[in-house]
Amino acid sequence: MRKKLYDLLNHQAPGSLQRGSTVFMVVVIFMSSIALVLTSEPAVEIRFGRLLGAVEVVASLVFLVEYLLRIWTAPEQYPLRSSWSSRVRYLTSFMGLVDLFSFLPFLLMLAGSQQTPVLMLLQLTRLLKLTRYSLAFDLLADVLHDEAESLLVSVMLMFIILIFASVGIYTFEHQVQPDAFGSIPHAMWWAIVTLTTVGYGDVTPVTVQGKIFATLITVVGVGLVSLPAGIIASGFTEQLRLRRERFQSEVEQLLQDDGHLSSEDMGQLERDRQELGINRDKAELIISQVQQREQQWLRKHQDSGGTGAHGTRT
Amino acid sequence: MRKKLYDLLNHQAPGSLQRGSTVFMVVVIFMSSIALVLTSEPAVEIRFGRLLGAVEVVASLVFLVEYLLRIWTAPEQYPLRSSWSSRVRYLTSFMGLVDLFSFLPFLLMLAGSQQTPVLMLLQLTRLLKLTRYSLAFDLLADVLHDEAESLLVSVMLMFIILIFASVGIYTFEHQVQPDAFGSIPHAMWWAIVTLTTVGYGDVTPVTVQGKIFATLITVVGVGLVSLPAGIIASGFTEQLRLRRERFQSEVEQLLQDDGHLSSEDMGQLERDRQELGINRDKAELIISQVQQREQQWLRKHQDSGGTGAHGTRT
Amino acid sequence: MRKKLYDLLNHQAPGSLQRGSTVFMVVVIFMSSIALVLTSEPAVEIRFGRLLGAVEVVASLVFLVEYLLRIWTAPEQYPLRSSWSSRVRYLTSFMGLVDLFSFLPFLLMLAGSQQTPVLMLLQLTRLLKLTRYSLAFDLLADVLHDEAESLLVSVMLMFIILIFASVGIYTFEHQVQPDAFGSIPHAMWWAIVTLTTVGYGDVTPVTVQGKIFATLITVVGVGLVSLPAGIIASGFTEQLRLRRERFQSEVEQLLQDDGHLSSEDMGQLERDRQELGINRDKAELIISQVQQREQQWLRKHQDSGGTGAHGTRT
Amino acid sequence: MRKKLYDLLNHQAPGSLQRGSTVFMVVVIFMSSIALVLTSEPAVEIRFGRLLGAVEVVASLVFLVEYLLRIWTAPEQYPLRSSWSSRVRYLTSFMGLVDLFSFLPFLLMLAGSQQTPVLMLLQLTRLLKLTRYSLAFDLLADVLHDEAESLLVSVMLMFIILIFASVGIYTFEHQVQPDAFGSIPHAMWWAIVTLTTVGYGDVTPVTVQGKIFATLITVVGVGLVSLPAGIIASGFTEQLRLRRERFQSEVEQLLQDDGHLSSEDMGQLERDRQELGINRDKAELIISQVQQREQQWLRKHQDSGGTGAHGTRT
Repeated sequence: MRKKLYDLLNHQAPGSLQRGSTVFMVVVIFMSSIALVLTSEPAVEIRFGRLLGAVEVVASLVFLVEYLLRIWTAPEQYPLRSSWSSRVRYLTSFMGLVDLFSFLPFLLMLAGSQQTPVLMLLQLTRLLKLTRYSLAFDLLADVLHDEAESLLVSVMLMFIILIFASVGIYTFEHQVQPDAFGSIPHAMWWAIVTLTTVGYGDVTPVTVQGKIFATLITVVGVGLVSLPAGIIASGFTEQLRLRRERFQSEVEQLLQDDGHLSSEDMGQLERDRQELGINRDKAELIISQVQQREQQWLRKHQDSGGTGAHGTRT
Repeated sequence: MRKKLYDLLNHQAPGSLQRGSTVFMVVVIFMSSIALVLTSEPAVEIRFGRLLGAVEVVASLVFLVEYLLRIWTAPEQYPLRSSWSSRVRYLTSFMGLVDLFSFLPFLLMLAGSQQTPVLMLLQLTRLLKLTRYSLAFDLLADVLHDEAESLLVSVMLMFIILIFASVGIYTFEHQVQPDAFGSIPHAMWWAIVTLTTVGYGDVTPVTVQGKIFATLITVVGVGLVSLPAGIIASGFTEQLRLRRERFQSEVEQLLQDDGHLSSEDMGQLERDRQELGINRDKAELIISQVQQREQQWLRKHQDSGGTGAHGTRT
Repeated sequence: MRKKLYDLLNHQAPGSLQRGSTVFMVVVIFMSSIALVLTSEPAVEIRFGRLLGAVEVVASLVFLVEYLLRIWTAPEQYPLRSSWSSRVRYLTSFMGLVDLFSFLPFLLMLAGSQQTPVLMLLQLTRLLKLTRYSLAFDLLADVLHDEAESLLVSVMLMFIILIFASVGIYTFEHQVQPDAFGSIPHAMWWAIVTLTTVGYGDVTPVTVQGKIFATLITVVGVGLVSLPAGIIASGFTEQLRLRRERFQSEVEQLLQDDGHLSSEDMGQLERDRQELGINRDKAELIISQVQQREQQWLRKHQDSGGTGAHGTRT
Repeated sequence: MRKKLYDLLNHQAPGSLQRGSTVFMVVVIFMSSIALVLTSEPAVEIRFGRLLGAVEVVASLVFLVEYLLRIWTAPEQYPLRSSWSSRVRYLTSFMGLVDLFSFLPFLLMLAGSQQTPVLMLLQLTRLLKLTRYSLAFDLLADVLHDEAESLLVSVMLMFIILIFASVGIYTFEHQVQPDAFGSIPHAMWWAIVTLTTVGYGDVTPVTVQGKIFATLITVVGVGLVSLPAGIIASGFTEQLRLRRERFQSEVEQLLQDDGHLSSEDMGQLERDRQELGINRDKAELIISQVQQREQQWLRKHQDSGGTGAHGTRT
């Protein structure tokens, strides 16, 4: 029974119970976050304060129960460890802390503590619980891991260009606009607002040299700053390609063993497909392509080389 | 005749009549939308009010006639249903409602109702009729469907970072700027304007801590917010690749059956090409590549293995 | 000699003379455009007016001479036409008009006409002459042609969302801000500034409903507006892939004819490489890969099937 | 020993000493740059001025020592040259100058020279030393080199559209707003701020014609200006693909020589993998795919053609 509960909490249970529980958790997480945000608005607080408070109480209780259940089922997650060791492992894991913070601030407030911004930020860590509910977060995590070095370099490049932009604009503008460009850290605010193309317009260069410098730095910098997004997007494409190739290798392997795909093989492929997050359409296309290539090979072989071998395969 | 009319309305008729009717409908849709927009400008309304009104009348009549014809030809769309069932099906379909709204508001106005913003928005649904006139909308729909989960995750990420940004900036700025950052929902306006890099500059952080927080959130957030565009763009590439592969499979299949492409096969491929929305140049390249590979294989086989089999194929 | 001059004007002449003439023309085009821009600045005009005027005179003369030479060499461009027919063809072609406008406004000014903005814009068409000087413009033209339908759809989508955004914001804001949102065309200015993420901040929504609507439209719209850039970028990748495949087909064809690449074949491939705009490194990689595959095939064949055929190829 | 030191300075030494030295240098570069930036802020300077000065002294000494060591080990870098020739070569190389500038300004300041913006910019060249510490900079350099022509064309297109936008907006706005749009170079500031979507809002068109022109130029221009980022991103994808193909060719070559990968082959592949900057996971996938294809080929051959040849390979 602990196994079943563990599967349910981790989306490995079959059917509609799983779907219901997932939707329930996602809704609770979203509702409680929205309630938290709305509470800060005085006009809303006066009229709906009690309703919003109730949403928070219910959500915190749900998260508390979930936390206790996850502690209980932790041994299923780490089967090679002892019960207690596996529970300590969960309690100190990143997601364990996220689960703790999702209800702890509320308990503190019940215990008399005031609502403070820090408590509010802690409560919002519950949004990170959402990452459990889609394979696409895994995909994103894989992409970030794969492209870690490229992204690091992008960040370094951004840092380099940010420093150059700040020092340059400081040089040209700090005498004319001592308020906005009084020091390099101040100038950095302009640089970041410009390089990300946000461009509030609260500080802008006014001297001719400053404008020329800003032009150059903008043209070069805007491209560099949009690099990480480009890298992540192309990493997505690459990661999906890699996963398709892995699936194809698997199909070829299974087909090669005995020349056709048994229903057992199909079950295996279906599990692989889900794990790799491949679209059903694409999976079918890959399977049919591999089969076609195989048949093509066989047919040709029977025509020519195969005949020479007196048709050992029919 | 009903069949011919149905084909004409759905761009499956051949030749110049089809082209003429498509151009006519696109022009009517565009002109009537522009007329609607211009009517709201008093200076234009005074001088060209009657002309714009006439455009609207004509367009509404065209849409009404189109609607009636589509109702009449609905049985061609759903051949397996009875006439009435298929008509009810069309009337309650999404595009059926779009077609209805494209002239209904005008009839209401004729019947004495005032021009209201809601009526205006209803009238503008006629722009959605444009989606009938290009295969590329199909492509976009396929991409959105394929990448649905990635896009959902992007939206969730955007939501998460939006909440964090709002709470953070509220924390740092609400005491100094109680007007602009008086509550988290207010702060959210700043967050959305910043994260999308629109950056109006109507609200900006002024405290040092607020600016440092804004810098961090901007650098991280800008990348995440541009993710959906990147995903859609890479989905486009992927979808086009998938369609090319499907076309190639089809060519291989046809070529394999009897060793060459008959004129019947070419007709089939031309239909596939149009349906898959593949460029004529690319289609020809794919066909010639498949043929070349096939010939290469045959040639080699005759040299070596084929000789061993006493040349069963020549 | 006319042939040589034609080759020189169209970058098909060999060696350093070609390079010199290309650099010269590019420099003249850039310098004269910059001079034109600087002339409009009174402070610069007073000090360097005569110098800038001289640059303009020289450039116009260069363009005049180029124009006459192109008229003379036009028959080389259209070898199947008669001399006069080919010249008329050039004179009425798009680039012929661009060449004409590059010096005509200056002649008009010499003849007493005032410098007017329209004349200035005509003069700037000389910038379009730059498109002759890089194969990458061809690549861009191919991409735009290939992706024409996708881009058209993007523009239609942009138009649709622009209209919806304008009507929506007009609905919510025109009573509170009658100046900025007094009519839908006025509201369209806000919509375009917001959807392109330029975000000047000269007009922004102030009502709560307006801000909520703006949030929704921004999140959806920003992705759609960046679609064309994504399509063009992925079209670039696709176009480059297509060209590499064409080159590879060519290599396979040449290799298949007689089993190795003669120096004549290499010359042919070098011409193809330049025409397709493929990097030298990539071309070499493709050639070596094709050769390796071919050798691999031969080797394997000699081991097994080839033995059965008593080694017809060695 | 000089060889060992050279390897250490250039990240070719094995183990933890290398890692420690790399981290140390990166930290020194970052810390000293941040110190430089903070010194310009009076509030910080008063409280932490001595600490920041000390950081600068230590960093400059570290860079001085590094410089001397690099001069000493230069012969290892250019083994074919004489000791002195190789040292001169290093001293006059780009990175040699960067290394020199990283400590020279500080020596000048010690010698009595004032801190000036120019000196500050020179000091910041030390940030370029960071490019030594990641293979991803190599990748970026390769991409920039490969896509040089496409990028050049993008820059030319940007220049063309910038000029057209400036002249156009000048035409429509210079009479109404003589301050902001008094000349074309002034109008260029608006054009660059708009086309890069920074959109400060310090200068905006106010006439109807100006706004219509701005709308058109923005829609067209924004796409073109984001082209370089798209080209670089797709160049990244392409470059990574090229490197994977090179690695695959290498694996095929090694496997073909004697039918399996010896531990010596694996060592070679590991070196190639590092040099090409390929992820360990991807490398393993490529190797296993090549092996699988090879085995598949062998197996099929033994079944049919191989039998005909009386099983020459087992």
